[in-house]
Amino acid sequence: MRKKVVSFLASGRGSNFQAVARKIQSGDISRACLGVLVSDVPDAKALEIARDFGMKAHFVDPRAFASRAAHEKAIVKLLKEANTDLIVAAGYMRILTPYFVREYKNRIINIHPALLPSFPGVHAQKQAFDYGVKITGCTTHFIDEGTDTGPIIMQRAVPVEPDDTAESLAERILKEEHVILPLSVDLFCRDKLEVKGRKVVIK
Amino acid sequence: MRKKVVSFLASGRGSNFQAVARKIQSGDISRACLGVLVSDVPDAKALEIARDFGMKAHFVDPRAFASRAAHEKAIVKLLKEANTDLIVAAGYMRILTPYFVREYKNRIINIHPALLPSFPGVHAQKQAFDYGVKITGCTTHFIDEGTDTGPIIMQRAVPVEPDDTAESLAERILKEEHVILPLSVDLFCRDKLEVKGRKVVIK
Repeated sequence: MRKKVVSFLASGRGSNFQAVARKIQSGDISRACLGVLVSDVPDAKALEIARDFGMKAHFVDPRAFASRAAHEKAIVKLLKEANTDLIVAAGYMRILTPYFVREYKNRIINIHPALLPSFPGVHAQKQAFDYGVKITGCTTHFIDEGTDTGPIIMQRAVPVEPDDTAESLAERILKEEHVILPLSVDLFCRDKLEVKGRKVVIK
Repeated sequence: MRKKVVSFLASGRGSNFQAVARKIQSGDISRACLGVLVSDVPDAKALEIARDFGMKAHFVDPRAFASRAAHEKAIVKLLKEANTDLIVAAGYMRILTPYFVREYKNRIINIHPALLPSFPGVHAQKQAFDYGVKITGCTTHFIDEGTDTGPIIMQRAVPVEPDDTAESLAERILKEEHVILPLSVDLFCRDKLEVKGRKVVIK
């Protein structure tokens, strides 16, 4: 079985990208190799980190294209040139269009800092904190055409502590993100994930 | 400190009612005594169980009243006659009107078989199962004027197992309901719950 090429989309520091890339490079995720990283933000820290990993890192400027579709086509071209099997969205702040999703159906994994379907969209940790839940967490899922609605791969629960702030809570969630995202990528690369309708069966 | 009178609303067998009543009777919930049980279903098993506990149990027929408000007024009258401090909705299948909620503001506890705000409304366990979440659970909350939107008291996470059916999942969730509902009632009766905006602080 050929190793899978894992590429990344990131808009920020991409600590989740780093957590996965490290485990690919160390061999903990054994059936994968590093592809490219694409960012829509020129000074995203993730670009620098990717280069430190010896990866190709591309800034693809959304303002240089006439439409979202054109921007995405340029990105998809880069991903295909790298023979990408799996895309990891690690804090990528754009909604993918149906075109992009179809090109990589059930091959784009997103990490979301809440127990979906609770608190989709941005600032999920703060949404949960402000709502007053006692348990929140994080979710890995395949991206479909909705916002954070795709088939769920893994989830981890994180209790809200009495003295938490939105920030301290977000930090504890992030630690769990760094656990389930590499695990999900590993399962994908070992062909252990099967999507059946809305459900992801771990074989 | 006077003991709190805890009354119940139930439409079915009321296993959650039973879990709480048992702990009140045994003294595990020490600062409470049993009030009345009201059901909107004539042959609800909960009516019988309540009588076995030596409680007054009332069937209040919704069809005997011209309006929901009139039905609720009759129920509130019974609750007040019993000097009810806290109402536990244990599988009560009617939405309470704002009138009822205001009469007992932050004094009606509901148990919901999902990690709210995910999967409000009926058949929450099956909703979660069909959605394909990997973690669900249960929630106790004060009832407000929305459907399962009130301030959250406690939550318990329950993982979905690979060989689960909606039924086996519901059974495991029910076990956790029987834990957090009595705990929540106990906290209330010991004046340990403080509602601050949307949040319930456990003192």
